[in-house]
Amino acid sequence: MPLATDTRIFGAIEAGGTKFVCAVGNAQGDILAQTRFPTGEPTYTLATMLDFLKKQQDNFGAYAAIGLGCFGPLELDAASPRYGHILRTPKLGWSETDVVGPIAQEFSCPIGFDTDVNGAALAEHTWGSARDVEDLVYLTVGTGIGGGVIVNGKTITGLMHPEVGHLFPRRHPLDANFKGICPFHDDCLEGLASGTAIMARTGSSLDQLDISHPQWQIEADYLGQLCAQLVLTVSPRRIVIGGGVMSQTRLLPMIREQTLHWLHGYIDRREITTGVDGYIVLPGLGANAGVLGALALAMCAAP
Amino acid sequence: MPLATDTRIFGAIEAGGTKFVCAVGNAQGDILAQTRFPTGEPTYTLATMLDFLKKQQDNFGAYAAIGLGCFGPLELDAASPRYGHILRTPKLGWSETDVVGPIAQEFSCPIGFDTDVNGAALAEHTWGSARDVEDLVYLTVGTGIGGGVIVNGKTITGLMHPEVGHLFPRRHPLDANFKGICPFHDDCLEGLASGTAIMARTGSSLDQLDISHPQWQIEADYLGQLCAQLVLTVSPRRIVIGGGVMSQTRLLPMIREQTLHWLHGYIDRREITTGVDGYIVLPGLGANAGVLGALALAMCAAP
Repeated sequence: MPLATDTRIFGAIEAGGTKFVCAVGNAQGDILAQTRFPTGEPTYTLATMLDFLKKQQDNFGAYAAIGLGCFGPLELDAASPRYGHILRTPKLGWSETDVVGPIAQEFSCPIGFDTDVNGAALAEHTWGSARDVEDLVYLTVGTGIGGGVIVNGKTITGLMHPEVGHLFPRRHPLDANFKGICPFHDDCLEGLASGTAIMARTGSSLDQLDISHPQWQIEADYLGQLCAQLVLTVSPRRIVIGGGVMSQTRLLPMIREQTLHWLHGYIDRREITTGVDGYIVLPGLGANAGVLGALALAMCAAP
Repeated sequence: MPLATDTRIFGAIEAGGTKFVCAVGNAQGDILAQTRFPTGEPTYTLATMLDFLKKQQDNFGAYAAIGLGCFGPLELDAASPRYGHILRTPKLGWSETDVVGPIAQEFSCPIGFDTDVNGAALAEHTWGSARDVEDLVYLTVGTGIGGGVIVNGKTITGLMHPEVGHLFPRRHPLDANFKGICPFHDDCLEGLASGTAIMARTGSSLDQLDISHPQWQIEADYLGQLCAQLVLTVSPRRIVIGGGVMSQTRLLPMIREQTLHWLHGYIDRREITTGVDGYIVLPGLGANAGVLGALALAMCAAP
């Protein structure tokens, strides 16, 4: 936990596929200034971001570091010539865009760069629902599905970074015929269980459907499968699950139940078997997890 | 990599569900003495193991540390009163057995304790097929299916430890009716794709089936799904895959092909897209990965 006497100032950029949130914050997790705007084409969007950072630096003084939590997939390997680029993405115009380079040209401070969801995981670990554990997953279920993973207190990078939204769940018996909406895989998790998929399948968002509608069971099943797959692979001590779809909080106990169903008693740990209400939880930072994630990335990058 | 001048001596125990391998080794990965015996009931088996370690200590001098790589599930949390125990397991008589305690009573040196597969991953990282990467998965496909995961050079523990053999693949179209043999989940990966499952489904082991038999495609599909799920969750820089079933090396290129099929171009990294032959590989240590894993665990535990 950062000291209250730490007076450093950080730049923080949450670069989402739908919107950019740009902020200035301190090591206590306070946001001192903030702006948000829709994600347009790259040149204009990045210029708007830089304008904000430069103006705020005049107000607050030089940044100790800048954090950028970005929609993926990303090149995170500092040894690669493509470091700091967005890789091939369905987001129009953004494939192969260098997002770190323009910041580095304007600012000489260190730049922390990771996926938006790894950043959010770090924020939940620093200030939110997972302060007491060193191993956690942060999931967001909204327009798409993404996940950040922290092991031994550090985000997973590895070859690329986790892309848990593209795991492939087993089909729910009541969902045999929906094709799925992922441009890469059709019926991966994002293709079947994102907000976009719910809309494509039912013509409605989840909040517009009565709790008796099968979509609720289908959604809980797919997200329960995701949680179970994460338990079996990265063995987190907590799963934090947010995003627009999760604002329907009735879904949370259903997901917990489905997670236990898929694990079927094999993971013999009371944290899961009897403690699942504290194991799969909502974000402590709510919708701020993203921008605070960028702030946490900045703090990790600072000397 | 350890120095050639390091003269320390370590005890190494590979405690498998089928057999125990007990050895004495050095920091260069040389096995100086070894014995193996079938895994019987716990009291007798652990006593035989201790006898070996005590006798060899008379020959080689005091151990700098002892490593125990054990079949799971295990309690790895040093803060838990059950630390060092095997948890609920289908292996008759071994549930709730304390495997570390008896060693600690006889020897005052540090004891490294982890799953057999996390140990094997560490051995492949130290001396085998994954020396050049810090993020890897080691899989074994034999009587059962297990996997060890290393992130940033350290094995994953988290809440328990990875149990990737119990992930649930999608059913292969030619395998709709086989119930599966996992006592917990029926048709999880181990229930569908372990050597035991192959035998239950076809009445034969894989090597007895002609390459035109659908079992080959079914097996490659399930193991390809496993590799793809691991890429999407823990993002390894290499997947090392061994065990009895993999002694049928014709399977390896089929698994690579199925992994790419399931990822469907989404992971835009040349290490996978064009370099898959170097990404999914056989163990460099062959059948010795297990006992060398125990040796690596000892080395990590030594001061």
